Amino acid sequence: MEIVEVGPRDGLQNEKRVLPTAVKVEYVRRAIGAGLRRIEVAAFARPDRVPQMADAEDVLRAVPRSSAVRYVALVMNERGLERALALGDARPDEINYVVVASDEFSRRNQGVTTMESLAAFRAVAQRARDAGFFVTLTVAAAFGCPFTGEVPVSRVRQIVQQSGPLDELCLADTIGVGVPVQVAELAAAVRGVAPLRAHFHNTRNTGYANAMAAVDAGFVALDSSLGGIGGCPFAPAATGNVATEDLAYLLNRSGLKTGVAVPAAAEAGAWIGAELGLEAVAAQLGRAGDFPAVAN
Amino acid sequence: MEIVEVGPRDGLQNEKRVLPTAVKVEYVRRAIGAGLRRIEVAAFARPDRVPQMADAEDVLRAVPRSSAVRYVALVMNERGLERALALGDARPDEINYVVVASDEFSRRNQGVTTMESLAAFRAVAQRARDAGFFVTLTVAAAFGCPFTGEVPVSRVRQIVQQSGPLDELCLADTIGVGVPVQVAELAAAVRGVAPLRAHFHNTRNTGYANAMAAVDAGFVALDSSLGGIGGCPFAPAATGNVATEDLAYLLNRSGLKTGVAVPAAAEAGAWIGAELGLEAVAAQLGRAGDFPAVAN
Repeated sequence: MEIVEVGPRDGLQNEKRVLPTAVKVEYVRRAIGAGLRRIEVAAFARPDRVPQMADAEDVLRAVPRSSAVRYVALVMNERGLERALALGDARPDEINYVVVASDEFSRRNQGVTTMESLAAFRAVAQRARDAGFFVTLTVAAAFGCPFTGEVPVSRVRQIVQQSGPLDELCLADTIGVGVPVQVAELAAAVRGVAPLRAHFHNTRNTGYANAMAAVDAGFVALDSSLGGIGGCPFAPAATGNVATEDLAYLLNRSGLKTGVAVPAAAEAGAWIGAELGLEAVAAQLGRAGDFPAVAN
Repeated sequence: MEIVEVGPRDGLQNEKRVLPTAVKVEYVRRAIGAGLRRIEVAAFARPDRVPQMADAEDVLRAVPRSSAVRYVALVMNERGLERALALGDARPDEINYVVVASDEFSRRNQGVTTMESLAAFRAVAQRARDAGFFVTLTVAAAFGCPFTGEVPVSRVRQIVQQSGPLDELCLADTIGVGVPVQVAELAAAVRGVAPLRAHFHNTRNTGYANAMAAVDAGFVALDSSLGGIGGCPFAPAATGNVATEDLAYLLNRSGLKTGVAVPAAAEAGAWIGAELGLEAVAAQLGRAGDFPAVAN
């Protein structure tokens, strides 16, 4: 089971403290040291809107390169793709685009309806694939919308059917409301379109159960962030990603090979928490400790 | 799916601050108000060893009684059973006894080996059943031991085979190391002995995934505590039970009837956290909020 480290992008983007480029690069180095091989490191967003991602180019130029490690960048439009292309040898390996499942959330997030965003994606995806990028689409709020409530499975299927060619499809529980039965139902509804990745937030303590349901439903990859960063555990509606170290513990001990070393991941999680000035990270393995005889 | 509220016993017993009897009784009242109908309220332990449980008799005399609500008490030996019997009309409905799966942990916890403890249980269980109690046995550390590591499934089966008659068997992940595949394997190994209950701690963020695995494996009941109390989230090796409000959210939204109202449970969890002087409880529903259209 592949774990995709999204802490340097989705995690940091939702933390208040803006980190220097060098700290972000060290976060990526530590992720690689813990065994992660696919890492979302940047978003090509407007710096005034997303200050934490203002140094996207600098991060991509500075992270260590090897054939074993793939970097992902979030692209929101043609302008973002152009920034990715302009990086030359320092460009990311993958482009991830997010479409929000409900119109209301999509309008608030991107200023357009879901289908308008999807039309923009098709154009970006075509160009990106022509340029040799691995292109993934994330359907955000696929498990529920904070403004309109339930998101029907049929709605997600309708979006996916109009996505055009994809290298991978990610179903995201952006606000952490999903439960395992939804994972199975959504997987059944979109099966065959592309290999499936899942993205869970542990906002209501269902994230790890959902991850196991994704394993059972044939998903090939799971997003997580070292430390489970991305939302303060003391704020209302904390919204951190599932934590890489805790997810790796769960999967490794379940006999699934992730390649992630739990102790090194837990150290990296604690380290980024300290860099962010957090009293404690949401991840629990750093405090509780690995359990003996766990194979990677 | 039945949720057994264990906060007033297992939860409080692992919290530093000793609460007045009246607060414990109010905790029980709030649990009942949230829809819980089976509640572990006391342990008959030595007051010098377990100060939080020193008022076991007072709690049992003060909690509201109705035919809809069943109270459980932990009994550790003949002396404990005698205390239960001496309560007359105020006696608990159920007796729960704990045997620890590994000899090392059993000796440290109870001063005897697992099989010595089991022999004592058989004598207590016989008397308790004759006196009309519903008798349950909890196998602690069934998913792993903090001193000796892995606990083989065969060891748990061996214990259960020598337990004598039981009304219910509980498999407990006392130190929160278990994963879903263990739930399935243990259930298969002991099936048919008695109806199964499971007891999870969320120490490594596997508790809720394990709870779903228990549903799939045919367990009929799950232990949890309002607020997820029982271990400080900031202490090393925090050991709280899975939280009742979060478990009820997961099960209710999965279409399983628990009878527990998530908002009332979340309020009760936050309340007991405040009574214990905790900055925050481990339960997340109180912060994140229920999600629309959830049926009980």
